[in-house]
Amino acid sequence: MGDGVKEACGLFGVFGDPSAAHTAYLGSYAQQHRGMESCGISSTDGHQIYVKTGMGLVPEVFSKKDFANGNGSPLEGYAALGHVRYSTTGDSSIKNAQPLVVPTLLGEIALAHNGNLTNAVGLKEKLMSMAPGLINFATTTDSEVIGKLIARSQADNLEEAIIDAFSHPKDTAKGAYSLLILNKDAMYVIRDPNAFRPLFIGRKGKSVIAASEPFAFTVNDATYDREVKPGELIVVNKDTMNSDPGYRSIQLLKSSSITQCVFEGVYYARPDHVIKGVSVSKMRLKFGHRLAQEYPVGADIVTPIPDSGNFAAVGYSEESGIRYMPAYVRSHHVGRTFMLPHQSDREVAAKIKLAVIPELVKDKRVIVVDDSIVRGTTSKNRIQLLWDAGAKEVHLRISCPPTRHPCFYGFDFSTYEELIAHRKGEVEEIRKHVGATTLGYLSLEGMLEIVGKDGNCTACWDGNYPVDPEDFKAGRLKKGKC
Amino acid sequence: MGDGVKEACGLFGVFGDPSAAHTAYLGSYAQQHRGMESCGISSTDGHQIYVKTGMGLVPEVFSKKDFANGNGSPLEGYAALGHVRYSTTGDSSIKNAQPLVVPTLLGEIALAHNGNLTNAVGLKEKLMSMAPGLINFATTTDSEVIGKLIARSQADNLEEAIIDAFSHPKDTAKGAYSLLILNKDAMYVIRDPNAFRPLFIGRKGKSVIAASEPFAFTVNDATYDREVKPGELIVVNKDTMNSDPGYRSIQLLKSSSITQCVFEGVYYARPDHVIKGVSVSKMRLKFGHRLAQEYPVGADIVTPIPDSGNFAAVGYSEESGIRYMPAYVRSHHVGRTFMLPHQSDREVAAKIKLAVIPELVKDKRVIVVDDSIVRGTTSKNRIQLLWDAGAKEVHLRISCPPTRHPCFYGFDFSTYEELIAHRKGEVEEIRKHVGATTLGYLSLEGMLEIVGKDGNCTACWDGNYPVDPEDFKAGRLKKGKC
Amino acid sequence: MGDGVKEACGLFGVFGDPSAAHTAYLGSYAQQHRGMESCGISSTDGHQIYVKTGMGLVPEVFSKKDFANGNGSPLEGYAALGHVRYSTTGDSSIKNAQPLVVPTLLGEIALAHNGNLTNAVGLKEKLMSMAPGLINFATTTDSEVIGKLIARSQADNLEEAIIDAFSHPKDTAKGAYSLLILNKDAMYVIRDPNAFRPLFIGRKGKSVIAASEPFAFTVNDATYDREVKPGELIVVNKDTMNSDPGYRSIQLLKSSSITQCVFEGVYYARPDHVIKGVSVSKMRLKFGHRLAQEYPVGADIVTPIPDSGNFAAVGYSEESGIRYMPAYVRSHHVGRTFMLPHQSDREVAAKIKLAVIPELVKDKRVIVVDDSIVRGTTSKNRIQLLWDAGAKEVHLRISCPPTRHPCFYGFDFSTYEELIAHRKGEVEEIRKHVGATTLGYLSLEGMLEIVGKDGNCTACWDGNYPVDPEDFKAGRLKKGKC
Amino acid sequence: MGDGVKEACGLFGVFGDPSAAHTAYLGSYAQQHRGMESCGISSTDGHQIYVKTGMGLVPEVFSKKDFANGNGSPLEGYAALGHVRYSTTGDSSIKNAQPLVVPTLLGEIALAHNGNLTNAVGLKEKLMSMAPGLINFATTTDSEVIGKLIARSQADNLEEAIIDAFSHPKDTAKGAYSLLILNKDAMYVIRDPNAFRPLFIGRKGKSVIAASEPFAFTVNDATYDREVKPGELIVVNKDTMNSDPGYRSIQLLKSSSITQCVFEGVYYARPDHVIKGVSVSKMRLKFGHRLAQEYPVGADIVTPIPDSGNFAAVGYSEESGIRYMPAYVRSHHVGRTFMLPHQSDREVAAKIKLAVIPELVKDKRVIVVDDSIVRGTTSKNRIQLLWDAGAKEVHLRISCPPTRHPCFYGFDFSTYEELIAHRKGEVEEIRKHVGATTLGYLSLEGMLEIVGKDGNCTACWDGNYPVDPEDFKAGRLKKGKC
Repeated sequence: MGDGVKEACGLFGVFGDPSAAHTAYLGSYAQQHRGMESCGISSTDGHQIYVKTGMGLVPEVFSKKDFANGNGSPLEGYAALGHVRYSTTGDSSIKNAQPLVVPTLLGEIALAHNGNLTNAVGLKEKLMSMAPGLINFATTTDSEVIGKLIARSQADNLEEAIIDAFSHPKDTAKGAYSLLILNKDAMYVIRDPNAFRPLFIGRKGKSVIAASEPFAFTVNDATYDREVKPGELIVVNKDTMNSDPGYRSIQLLKSSSITQCVFEGVYYARPDHVIKGVSVSKMRLKFGHRLAQEYPVGADIVTPIPDSGNFAAVGYSEESGIRYMPAYVRSHHVGRTFMLPHQSDREVAAKIKLAVIPELVKDKRVIVVDDSIVRGTTSKNRIQLLWDAGAKEVHLRISCPPTRHPCFYGFDFSTYEELIAHRKGEVEEIRKHVGATTLGYLSLEGMLEIVGKDGNCTACWDGNYPVDPEDFKAGRLKKGKC
Repeated sequence: MGDGVKEACGLFGVFGDPSAAHTAYLGSYAQQHRGMESCGISSTDGHQIYVKTGMGLVPEVFSKKDFANGNGSPLEGYAALGHVRYSTTGDSSIKNAQPLVVPTLLGEIALAHNGNLTNAVGLKEKLMSMAPGLINFATTTDSEVIGKLIARSQADNLEEAIIDAFSHPKDTAKGAYSLLILNKDAMYVIRDPNAFRPLFIGRKGKSVIAASEPFAFTVNDATYDREVKPGELIVVNKDTMNSDPGYRSIQLLKSSSITQCVFEGVYYARPDHVIKGVSVSKMRLKFGHRLAQEYPVGADIVTPIPDSGNFAAVGYSEESGIRYMPAYVRSHHVGRTFMLPHQSDREVAAKIKLAVIPELVKDKRVIVVDDSIVRGTTSKNRIQLLWDAGAKEVHLRISCPPTRHPCFYGFDFSTYEELIAHRKGEVEEIRKHVGATTLGYLSLEGMLEIVGKDGNCTACWDGNYPVDPEDFKAGRLKKGKC
Repeated sequence: MGDGVKEACGLFGVFGDPSAAHTAYLGSYAQQHRGMESCGISSTDGHQIYVKTGMGLVPEVFSKKDFANGNGSPLEGYAALGHVRYSTTGDSSIKNAQPLVVPTLLGEIALAHNGNLTNAVGLKEKLMSMAPGLINFATTTDSEVIGKLIARSQADNLEEAIIDAFSHPKDTAKGAYSLLILNKDAMYVIRDPNAFRPLFIGRKGKSVIAASEPFAFTVNDATYDREVKPGELIVVNKDTMNSDPGYRSIQLLKSSSITQCVFEGVYYARPDHVIKGVSVSKMRLKFGHRLAQEYPVGADIVTPIPDSGNFAAVGYSEESGIRYMPAYVRSHHVGRTFMLPHQSDREVAAKIKLAVIPELVKDKRVIVVDDSIVRGTTSKNRIQLLWDAGAKEVHLRISCPPTRHPCFYGFDFSTYEELIAHRKGEVEEIRKHVGATTLGYLSLEGMLEIVGKDGNCTACWDGNYPVDPEDFKAGRLKKGKC
Repeated sequence: MGDGVKEACGLFGVFGDPSAAHTAYLGSYAQQHRGMESCGISSTDGHQIYVKTGMGLVPEVFSKKDFANGNGSPLEGYAALGHVRYSTTGDSSIKNAQPLVVPTLLGEIALAHNGNLTNAVGLKEKLMSMAPGLINFATTTDSEVIGKLIARSQADNLEEAIIDAFSHPKDTAKGAYSLLILNKDAMYVIRDPNAFRPLFIGRKGKSVIAASEPFAFTVNDATYDREVKPGELIVVNKDTMNSDPGYRSIQLLKSSSITQCVFEGVYYARPDHVIKGVSVSKMRLKFGHRLAQEYPVGADIVTPIPDSGNFAAVGYSEESGIRYMPAYVRSHHVGRTFMLPHQSDREVAAKIKLAVIPELVKDKRVIVVDDSIVRGTTSKNRIQLLWDAGAKEVHLRISCPPTRHPCFYGFDFSTYEELIAHRKGEVEEIRKHVGATTLGYLSLEGMLEIVGKDGNCTACWDGNYPVDPEDFKAGRLKKGKC
């Protein structure tokens, strides 16, 4: 939910599983919250690469007939990648859905990517100049740029081609990339040297699984061994499967500094996700405690915006001693999957999706806790619901600092203009805009005390970009186009 | 959610609205939780009755083209009924979806019904004997029986035919019925003399609205005037609209005792629903307080089964002083609308739908609060999730008494055999079955102190049936068939 | 094609066939030309009656999954009826598609009917008055009236109920009916005493087949034994199957005079159909010979309107010695199954469907032979195509007499007003209307010499109605409504 | 129909028409017989190239919403190409449907192509070697090879790029190509120097039309000016439209010899098609005359295989004096659009599609006339139908010489192995195979006397290939793959 931030992507890969595509289906379904616009599964049976992608949720796009291994299923085989996506670069069209299949002289490869490159546009221009008029890109994603870098290599096998592509002195991919690659023989798991986006590796029996979040392991009755390391390339094939730990690790790129995205924990990931070894649910609870210390206020109840504000609200209530009372009712029957008859119904659907119980807030001083304010539009409406229900005071508390800088590493706010905190500047102006009695943001210091001083990307709050946003600086970055 | 109890029905009616069908769409959408199996809208433009029904959710069944008034829309007109349904009598088939259109000699009428008749089967047999072989019922619903009783009347107009049908000395409908009837001239609103099921009447501008729950008024920017009275018939037509209050009231049947369903408040209705003037959210909070008094236990956290146990869990935490901690994560992406590829995926889908955050319960003593246990199957699975996550103790608290008797008035447990509390008898046996460390049910006394001594149907807990279940006693009641 | 006359119905029944529904599918497909608006198959496995109907052609409505006997197919069983239909009474809606399933106290029965009753409306009113307000008809077909007459009978078994229904002194069905009835035990084959519509009975191995045209036997590698006799009821069940000839014959009604439809032979049936023992192709050839004798004219070529005029044109050419030259090209890619983008495309589609080869008619005197002129619209357009292609003279020859009277026995011209020969009166006026140089109709005498003096219904040419059109006379007959 | 030869392609282009896409729809519909597997339309509004393709017939793939110019139609604009296709090179998949859109540095271009290149595989390999690993072909068609040759040119505008591509000394396209190209500014019309495949140019008002057959002009109320000349490039843009004749002609390539395909006239084209100024219907009539002279036989009737043998049979009958009698009934309700439930139904469908009227052939000596025998399978079945119906003798007459050599210029028999005349050698052996009493083929001399000695491609009969089949000789030609 948050405040209009759409999700980025969720990755799942499995190798050595006789129902690989179906395992990828379940793992992707478990990561649905990471991308609800399109999804896809690619698989291999050792002979060819299969792929099916579609707009919509995992259970909408796939059905029984897709998984009848050996019965003319579109997704045969013992290895598969799954991907859920919200477009951050590239159009929201089906052609940009992943896994992306890229033809190479070594055979087709399938790619699933989470994160954004910071130099995709520049790389693309360079590649296209190699045979003017004859080189085409099938998508507008930066993921395809990675695929073409690999396709360009003259190496004899895919492993070398990947190493070649990522170690090319002048024109290699930069920025954020958690990446899975599948060809008919092997699966490759890659994480950028900054480790911006999450990626876990584990095993179930003999098969090897990689996924963005721990819960994707849980639903498959598997557990992860560890995070994929910054700059690591993991190779999984029939040989590695019979050794221990089932995969082979290569330090693809040196990692000088780790900068994991903290915003994943604030808002985006499931509460059972784990960042730097800590449960996101506990992290959010502590954000609530700290927020109550930094911005105390007298009130009758503390209510979360469900579900993203739940834990921080419980934490705030605990620390402040003010009664926890869930005043918002969230409907489970309003989804993005439904087209509404009239334009004006969006407003009604919003009402149905999130309503306030009048009896609980009438004449009350209410503290409402949310995870973040990015564009400011939804916050305003949600505050208004409390006023409409008769609240006497509405105190908004946000469990992260003001979002003042764009994200070039995978979230969908990549311009300054769309950020309310950039446009309004002062917190007081933001408060006026959303219509709250008071407004308090968790301080960056407070946050870092909880998540640990080191190893964080905090660029969206302080503007310290750990990887230089080249395309952005060069003015090559058109919103949603690579 | 509850424990396998499916919902019954939600009614919405509007008269005197140029976008009547669309208003019914929004009102029905707001009541979606009352029935997710099928839905329908019927309307009139003064010339004929239109109807569209379908299996699935309101936004799945209806789309823009259904509401293009005057442009060949299938649902023209200024008056409309909306209905959401889970079958309690009748098959789950599309032919049983409502509103039901019944042909009469006075023209077609559309019916939307919530509740179950206790003598539908007997009435049906009686009617069919009037011209053996020539009288057919299009559905297996008791709602059609009401329609045929009206069709049988030789009265000159529909109002008299309705009065005739309900005042027929020997063979009139008995049991639970909140009922909306529409013909091309008027809308009729009826509630049985016991007032089993909810029904509210109100107005928006000149138009008159009737609905099962207050929230259906809220989403249409309307408010309700009052509940429909026990035994009342309300007539709405073009004449009444220009008078005050917009409708005409007739005492159709004498009401000797009011017995509103309490289970609506325990489990079924939205938390912003109102029973006997009290918000359901507050009622549930008090159930939690009382439960903590009746069944205290030492523990580390109190967690609800979301969302039905939310308020009782907050109440239990408040009263006991034990930390409130939402340990279950509910996914919003798992719905009944999705077919899963494999049979075994139902289990995985259940895991995705409701998971426990291991870090919050490991080695903890956990109190888990749910609304009810009807069949016992889901409770068992949910308790197991806590054990799997490493809980040390699991104390289950239920915010209503043991459900020991079937409901003949509209909920979908109409046999003794399916009730775990009937099969197991002692609470201790139920506890063993669900696998909890301890199990405590709210006492009936405790409940009645909160909801008020009078005016309640408590049959499912104490077997006191306010209306004689005739068909059941006569062995005429086959499950799901009328 | 003809001149805008739509087809009526085709019947197919099979009993004692392990793939009964599929056999009915093939038999109905072979009779597709008899009705292209809707179709249906009903079957039984001895336990229940299955039915599936749809708008469109047989291969459009049915697919593989419908026929997977014993694998959850919708059409199980060893006996089945098939029906293709163009509505002559009743709306063109899916609810009127046949086979029609009618509930009776003896269980459900399926009906497939070809022909029109002359007293359906009167019968319907009578039946409805038996329990005012409680008796409904699900369709507007006269076929349902027959079903209700059977349902009304208090007989103990279906055979007696059928006999009862057809021998009821005052209110029995009159007019044209070739009829197949199926219940879970037996198939009944009925033909009216006048034998208006065709119906053949035969056998393939042990199974018994009934069908409207011989070709339906041919495609199933079967041959027919004989025509069903006027007024005959044939019973087929598991007992009769083991005797010879496989079915039991009952003279249901006395037949005083046989009046088979000749128009079937002129226009409607396939050329391999057989009427009174004679191949329709040969009959049409002789119509052409006789036409050349009655209306000779000097010309360069004789061309048919394909395909209905083919044989008469060959006959005309043979008799006259004028060169046969197929100047029209008929496209096989224009069907009624395709919706065209624009209203005006109908005209272009007509051009594509039937075009004239300019080189063959330019500056030529052309005799064009067609089967009939009913409404006159299409004739006009087809004549114009010849003029547009540069013909010098266009002589139209019609292989039947002027259609001056409506058909109340099953064709879709049931009013005087729609008949061009009624509206225009004189042949000369018709000629002017269609734009031909000369126009000649085959004389009734000429026709009867070819088809035989006796046993014909010639009502549409001479107005001699062998069965009194009761509903029509009483003004009860609304076009397309029963 | 013929004998299992599938069609190749039909082209339609229009420039300067406010309803261009819709005009292309009608023109393509009129050419449906030239390709029934897939079809497509591409258009431009001066800003971008639109395209929609699909598997199936023109009216199946396109519907009203595709042509709502200016209302969000997918096919806007004033210029459009239409294409119908049966794959001769490339898979039968949707990705190979045309028009094909190829990206170039000068913007996207749409191509519609009829004919086969003889050096496509060689050209493709050459192009891909220019930037190994980075150049991909989206289809397996030789049409895309043409597109890439154009894309490769570094010319400043499309006209020059086309000239560049076709005049490149070493690596230009060879073989058969009638070609339409559209970019956002202009339409280009090209015919190979041998003029293998038909292509006509004409005008309707100001707009310019190009099409494969005259009938595509007729349905649009247009007429053609002339054939496109061998080796000609015609340019149509907004400037040329205002001059006379509306387009500009460039001699793209010198034409040393014209070799038009005669098989188009024998079998493939509509009877109103024109080859070298002569109506195909008249040509076929003369084939029949000549065949009767070359292979006379005593018989009772002459029947065509409808519709491809119609004119030759009339000719045979005229010349021989033997009675013309259409003994086959062709059903218009059996299409390739319908999936049949069972594998074995194909046989029944064949029976329904083409049946023999037994009464016309029983105990008769029958001459049956067909256009050609390519693979021999269908001929055999059709002969058998006559025997089954009781024919005494069956004399098969074929209105072209034995098809002994593959076609590399656009028909779908590109291997020797599939040709019955190649496999069997002697006509006597073919006769035995198809089961006829006698078999006679029109002689090549006879044919050339009718169509003229010069300007013909007769390669499939005599093996004289006017353009060297390079890929075939080099063993590079895999069936259906480029």
